Amino acid sequence: MTTAARTLDEQAAALDAEDVLAPVRERFLIPDGLVYLDGNSLGPLPAAVPPVLTDVVHRQWGTDLIRSWNSNDWWQAPLRVGDAVGRLVGAAPGQTVVGDSTSVQLYTALSAAAGLLPGRRLLVTDPGHFPTDRYLAESVARLHGLRVRPVPPGELERCLAAEGDDVCVVSYSPVDYRTGELYDMRALTAATHRAGALSLWDLCHAAGALPVHLDDLGVDFAVGCGYKFLSGGPGAPAFLYAARRHHEDWRTPLNGWTGHADPFGLQPDYTPAPGVARARIGTPPILSLLALKAALTAFEGIDMAQVRAKSLSLTGFFLSCAEEMLTGLGFEAVTPAEPARRASQVSLRHPHAYGLIRSLADQGVVADMRAPDLLRFGVNALYTSHQDVLTAVGRLRRTAANGAYDPSPQQAGTVT
Amino acid sequence: MTTAARTLDEQAAALDAEDVLAPVRERFLIPDGLVYLDGNSLGPLPAAVPPVLTDVVHRQWGTDLIRSWNSNDWWQAPLRVGDAVGRLVGAAPGQTVVGDSTSVQLYTALSAAAGLLPGRRLLVTDPGHFPTDRYLAESVARLHGLRVRPVPPGELERCLAAEGDDVCVVSYSPVDYRTGELYDMRALTAATHRAGALSLWDLCHAAGALPVHLDDLGVDFAVGCGYKFLSGGPGAPAFLYAARRHHEDWRTPLNGWTGHADPFGLQPDYTPAPGVARARIGTPPILSLLALKAALTAFEGIDMAQVRAKSLSLTGFFLSCAEEMLTGLGFEAVTPAEPARRASQVSLRHPHAYGLIRSLADQGVVADMRAPDLLRFGVNALYTSHQDVLTAVGRLRRTAANGAYDPSPQQAGTVT
Repeated sequence: MTTAARTLDEQAAALDAEDVLAPVRERFLIPDGLVYLDGNSLGPLPAAVPPVLTDVVHRQWGTDLIRSWNSNDWWQAPLRVGDAVGRLVGAAPGQTVVGDSTSVQLYTALSAAAGLLPGRRLLVTDPGHFPTDRYLAESVARLHGLRVRPVPPGELERCLAAEGDDVCVVSYSPVDYRTGELYDMRALTAATHRAGALSLWDLCHAAGALPVHLDDLGVDFAVGCGYKFLSGGPGAPAFLYAARRHHEDWRTPLNGWTGHADPFGLQPDYTPAPGVARARIGTPPILSLLALKAALTAFEGIDMAQVRAKSLSLTGFFLSCAEEMLTGLGFEAVTPAEPARRASQVSLRHPHAYGLIRSLADQGVVADMRAPDLLRFGVNALYTSHQDVLTAVGRLRRTAANGAYDPSPQQAGTVT
Repeated sequence: MTTAARTLDEQAAALDAEDVLAPVRERFLIPDGLVYLDGNSLGPLPAAVPPVLTDVVHRQWGTDLIRSWNSNDWWQAPLRVGDAVGRLVGAAPGQTVVGDSTSVQLYTALSAAAGLLPGRRLLVTDPGHFPTDRYLAESVARLHGLRVRPVPPGELERCLAAEGDDVCVVSYSPVDYRTGELYDMRALTAATHRAGALSLWDLCHAAGALPVHLDDLGVDFAVGCGYKFLSGGPGAPAFLYAARRHHEDWRTPLNGWTGHADPFGLQPDYTPAPGVARARIGTPPILSLLALKAALTAFEGIDMAQVRAKSLSLTGFFLSCAEEMLTGLGFEAVTPAEPARRASQVSLRHPHAYGLIRSLADQGVVADMRAPDLLRFGVNALYTSHQDVLTAVGRLRRTAANGAYDPSPQQAGTVT
């Protein structure tokens, strides 16, 4: 490395000085002095959100009242916000809808996939997948007479070679939420398609964090949450992507009136709306939805390739700092060193993960942990600096070296 | 009537003067001069909401960030807000959860009912039910191998006498959303139970509008929205009630991690949480959820019997005004005159419903219509006055008499 002769302080300063995204941090209201490395659980408050919410509450709801469904276009918000998310994940307009939680969207996507290939009986999911994804796979499999086949991404090819003809859908995340490992979406999607199966991606830890090319890869369905790297606020509604080629044939289970072809006709029978709009269910939570919409303006003028470059710089610098400063203190870096296999997070293993994360929080460094022993540090190119990374690792070093933490194994009750 | 000799103006003034709930109107920020009779579609902005949302956005999200799941108790919010709604619908604590839309909650409740009585093949619903309820009944029936039997509430006894042994669940609303007719929940629930079937009520047009006695009636499941008479804001999350006696046995289809018995254990298999908490799905929309929580404080210190008494006074006065002022102008009152059969809404039939509602809106009277010919006027005892009612009917009379409206049959694109 050309920076090897410089101190970590000098490196951080130099990397931040040449960071073209550095000014974007001003689009977020991050408390002074706080090092926030938990944006992979809950993104911080974008500056654009409070004035929008004030307008939504006082003028749109308070004054315009019911008329806002038309005059402030609440009615189309799930599709407009969907398109705004779509731009960040490589989806052309008209294929993405936002409104319900990731779990509900995933249930819809899994059910739709099961309905499109009714002869195939296997639903492949990652045994390391986020729990909700596994639970919902089991539930959908039960309802549709399928079986869940847990297959790690590294073994997908072997699974497909053996029983690919029977696989209906492969439901994966490109990012391991624990380790921060990034899988090869392109290769896994292509393998899935070669077997004639459908590809469903959970983008919770990818959307807004790195470039995703849904249309280009020919992905069939995708879902993802609005409150991690999109910084849409706590419990921000999630998105669902359905590739245009399925728009004629897919069926959704949650047939709410807003997904009807003629929602105001109040017809006795359900006729699904054309396109992705049939994935609309009930009345969406407008306050949360329009907060997300405002949050997405933080991405204006930014190319996801820039986001990716800076994210890799941040995680790479984190790993360098860890190697230099944490050696001999009981840590193991579990996030791959190879850039192509790193998402926007660094995970370290340590037997006292819980106590260390708690102690860091007391020192103004917010990260989180996953039981039993993983410390997770999420970086977001829009607001994280290399100095943040150095500060975090420095305080972690000091805490671990001094033993200044609670050694109990209790879990942190935080939300991924 | 003792008021017969008085003018309608005098009656309105007298009724408002003796209205014990009149001061409660100050708990809502209703635009000056506006007569708002569409709270059965979207309740107005409660004064308690803006300061709470400011705190939620700036302090809880902006400053406390991820820690708010614990420190501001976001984690328990779906259950705490559920209990707050439960108090208004006769549900003891621990049986109500708030988080997803009515459609999602209804899907959960219908699916749970189907699972509890697997031998019975009929799902009874009201052919006049709100469309979503019918669509979801069809969807759940398809997935569970049931058939939907559309039976108007007035014919339920006959249906149950003929094939009650085969009825799994009766899914009704106590209020016809078009006509404002109120059905006898107690009698219909009892008849359902005599047939050994489960009783599921959609309380969208009842919760907050009139006393509901879920526990007392032995109702099995109920759902209802947060944005009509509860004034929780546009798309406020909905509630689901599951009677305690089902808490051991009921199964839900949308198995998200927040409904797991050990949500932070990230277990590979789904073990449902005890009680109603298993109906939690994904991460709830916190901004919308806490807005609803704040909105519910408008009910503090108020007995639902007072709400009912004033609501009946308002709808009764509306019908009196209509009879006195609208005769000969082509209107027909479709809401029953009998108080026990009136919910908190008056519906009038007129061939030019659309144009009349549009014209009224231009004159500062907001109501809505349902195609083709129903004008709907919702009253809410917490903020509607008898003077509001008189003003609305007076302007309607003037508009109809002058023909000062667009006679086209176009539908209004408003949201029920």
